Amino acid sequence: MLHQVVNIAAVTVLGVIEQAYFSLQVIYARRKYSVSPPSTTGPPEFERVFRAQANCSEYFPIFVITLWVTGVFFSQAAACVCGLLYLYGRLMYFQGYSESAHGRLAPLYFSAKVLWTLIGLAALGVLNTMCDLHLGLDALQQLCGFFSPN
Amino acid sequence: MLHQVVNIAAVTVLGVIEQAYFSLQVIYARRKYSVSPPSTTGPPEFERVFRAQANCSEYFPIFVITLWVTGVFFSQAAACVCGLLYLYGRLMYFQGYSESAHGRLAPLYFSAKVLWTLIGLAALGVLNTMCDLHLGLDALQQLCGFFSPN
Amino acid sequence: MLHQVVNIAAVTVLGVIEQAYFSLQVIYARRKYSVSPPSTTGPPEFERVFRAQANCSEYFPIFVITLWVTGVFFSQAAACVCGLLYLYGRLMYFQGYSESAHGRLAPLYFSAKVLWTLIGLAALGVLNTMCDLHLGLDALQQLCGFFSPN
Repeated sequence: MLHQVVNIAAVTVLGVIEQAYFSLQVIYARRKYSVSPPSTTGPPEFERVFRAQANCSEYFPIFVITLWVTGVFFSQAAACVCGLLYLYGRLMYFQGYSESAHGRLAPLYFSAKVLWTLIGLAALGVLNTMCDLHLGLDALQQLCGFFSPN
Repeated sequence: MLHQVVNIAAVTVLGVIEQAYFSLQVIYARRKYSVSPPSTTGPPEFERVFRAQANCSEYFPIFVITLWVTGVFFSQAAACVCGLLYLYGRLMYFQGYSESAHGRLAPLYFSAKVLWTLIGLAALGVLNTMCDLHLGLDALQQLCGFFSPN
Repeated sequence: MLHQVVNIAAVTVLGVIEQAYFSLQVIYARRKYSVSPPSTTGPPEFERVFRAQANCSEYFPIFVITLWVTGVFFSQAAACVCGLLYLYGRLMYFQGYSESAHGRLAPLYFSAKVLWTLIGLAALGVLNTMCDLHLGLDALQQLCGFFSPN
């Protein structure tokens, strides 16, 4: 049972560590640009780091939820590959945004595409399980059987 | 096993898609009112859309967590009904807030009530499972038996 | 099965109720200092309450995710103890921050240490399950056997 989700859990822990790294960067930026809490405004260099972290934080729960639904209802391997790509994209996004507002765009589009893929796979996996439950029809398995008939 | 949570997973995926829709609205509002990142302030029309999305994002993890605890420990059907009502309330909230600060109030109170119901059911389900575990007493099942004795 | 996670679920529900309490405090602060939505700036007293809640909300999904990974892959008891300490630290943080920016520091460091402990235990639990799966080696169980050989 645990073996069926342990790789998703590993990607999740990796994601948590990445979020912790982003949070530490905000703390360093607060010190560097002398922006004391509760203020969240300051020089653009600080605001970019702050917004980069805020944006990653905002999407993190959505990412983790979709990762697990995909991993449980579609395929653990597909979820892990997409998950690692997403975390890589977010790291590039954070570093790009820290340098310039324009630098965030390419990795943002990349991680958005990966997240949409995860959402699509999650929806597919859930729909397939519902079909299987209500109609007794496991479409994904039949499709797999169609492409590899023996 | 998956059949016991597939409907909760479906409501979760629906919620993720709703959050994605809200995020897209913020991107459109940024373009429409020329508010470039990392800035988050601008004309009230933009700030309302921005805050509506921020508020929905903030509550989304709490909603998903409570949905799953209710679905697993209380009843999948009750969780799904509350979940769909909550997502509908949040859509009304987002549209109302986009139009005026006052327009957010009625759907906000509605979705708050639904979320409190979910929290109550989650607490009830967890307490009941704890009673069952520690005292060997499944109060919910006995209560059900009391109202439908045959 | 449910019995193995019911205590984690109880800590989770407690955490959700704490978050709800923080949200209510922001609503009261908005009324007290006359800061109407969508504005999020005002007197420092309001901004401290607002930022305290925003910070707790931001970390809440990370906390819940790490709590569950620790509870499922390492130990339910360890997860619950850390979870309760974290929620207590966050309550102190919220009350301290509401009074002064300096008052947030001690409980912030405390809850950060607890969260890092949870992240460490989650990583340990996941790594151990992966070793067990891929190498057939349950290091944690062997370690326990080493310290209590009979």
